[in-house]
Amino acid sequence: MKINYPNPSIKQKPTKNIFNSHGMYFENALNISNEYYRNLNKAIIYKKPTPIQIVKVDYPQRSKARIVEAYYQTPSTTDYNGIYRGKYIDYEAKETNNLSFNFKHISEHQMKHLHKIDEQGGIAFIIIFFKKINKVFIIDIKPFLKIFKDGIKSIKVSEFEEIGQEVKLGYSPPIDYLTAVDKLYFKTTLDN
Amino acid sequence: MKINYPNPSIKQKPTKNIFNSHGMYFENALNISNEYYRNLNKAIIYKKPTPIQIVKVDYPQRSKARIVEAYYQTPSTTDYNGIYRGKYIDYEAKETNNLSFNFKHISEHQMKHLHKIDEQGGIAFIIIFFKKINKVFIIDIKPFLKIFKDGIKSIKVSEFEEIGQEVKLGYSPPIDYLTAVDKLYFKTTLDN
Repeated sequence: MKINYPNPSIKQKPTKNIFNSHGMYFENALNISNEYYRNLNKAIIYKKPTPIQIVKVDYPQRSKARIVEAYYQTPSTTDYNGIYRGKYIDYEAKETNNLSFNFKHISEHQMKHLHKIDEQGGIAFIIIFFKKINKVFIIDIKPFLKIFKDGIKSIKVSEFEEIGQEVKLGYSPPIDYLTAVDKLYFKTTLDN
Repeated sequence: MKINYPNPSIKQKPTKNIFNSHGMYFENALNISNEYYRNLNKAIIYKKPTPIQIVKVDYPQRSKARIVEAYYQTPSTTDYNGIYRGKYIDYEAKETNNLSFNFKHISEHQMKHLHKIDEQGGIAFIIIFFKKINKVFIIDIKPFLKIFKDGIKSIKVSEFEEIGQEVKLGYSPPIDYLTAVDKLYFKTTLDN
């Protein structure tokens, strides 16, 4: 996969976010960041494939199997998981055009899954991209679930500033979320 | 998913393996075992979806997106991963009709991936089902890779008996591989 990285020396209009203005969407930027971390042997984290329900497959002669009827399925877990600093890490990535994150954008299945990971001693969080202000935050599943259980419908950006950890956006990696993970879970950063 | 479990009180011919004789294939039996472990909160381990390259999608009115052209992709990692006893766990499942496991049945990509997981401090192994003798073994990636690097083309069942760990097959869970993981990686078993 060849990607034209944004040139950091080029000044951008603040209203445009760095991913969209270069056709780099959040998921793509996360995947590139994970590839960057893997190449450094800093962490082994992958996006899981989208589950597909396959209904009909054709086997044309001399060529590979061709799926001709299939449907997207709802994932039972989260988008990303892997290993970092010897720990199991698991997170769900979300993006929003609003200045708050509404719980209707995450399934109860996914929250339960992250809660179970936390109980097992893993690192479990949500990473949220606020497109309007071009900011990314990670929030641990515990405070996230606490707010949800309080019956509150959404979390404002200002609350993320307090209970979450802001993620530095840049050039390489585009989303340096593991530095935020260091601060939130390890209290120290690793030198690379 | 409703499964008709084999009735353990029914004696079976030793030449038939417990999975195939009941239409329960190895992958299915592993999935049921993982579901069993998840229900007990013993481990959170899932099979990753098969990666599919989607070429064409139809959006019929009033119904959900229908994929009309897609192809199976080669997975870049392994089949299963998750968390067990606070540790990241990652493995590839294989089955064979032979009395040895030939390295041609596993991709170098997958071996490299498991090697990297091992380097990061995770639990990384291959689980192999020998259909003919109805035996399942797990083998850590280190001895597995050592044999591969020695230029040997396959590993015999007798070698698995020595360097691997046999997995107890039964009723619930059908493949109790975490007990074998306990012996191989923790030297102690957990009471459940």
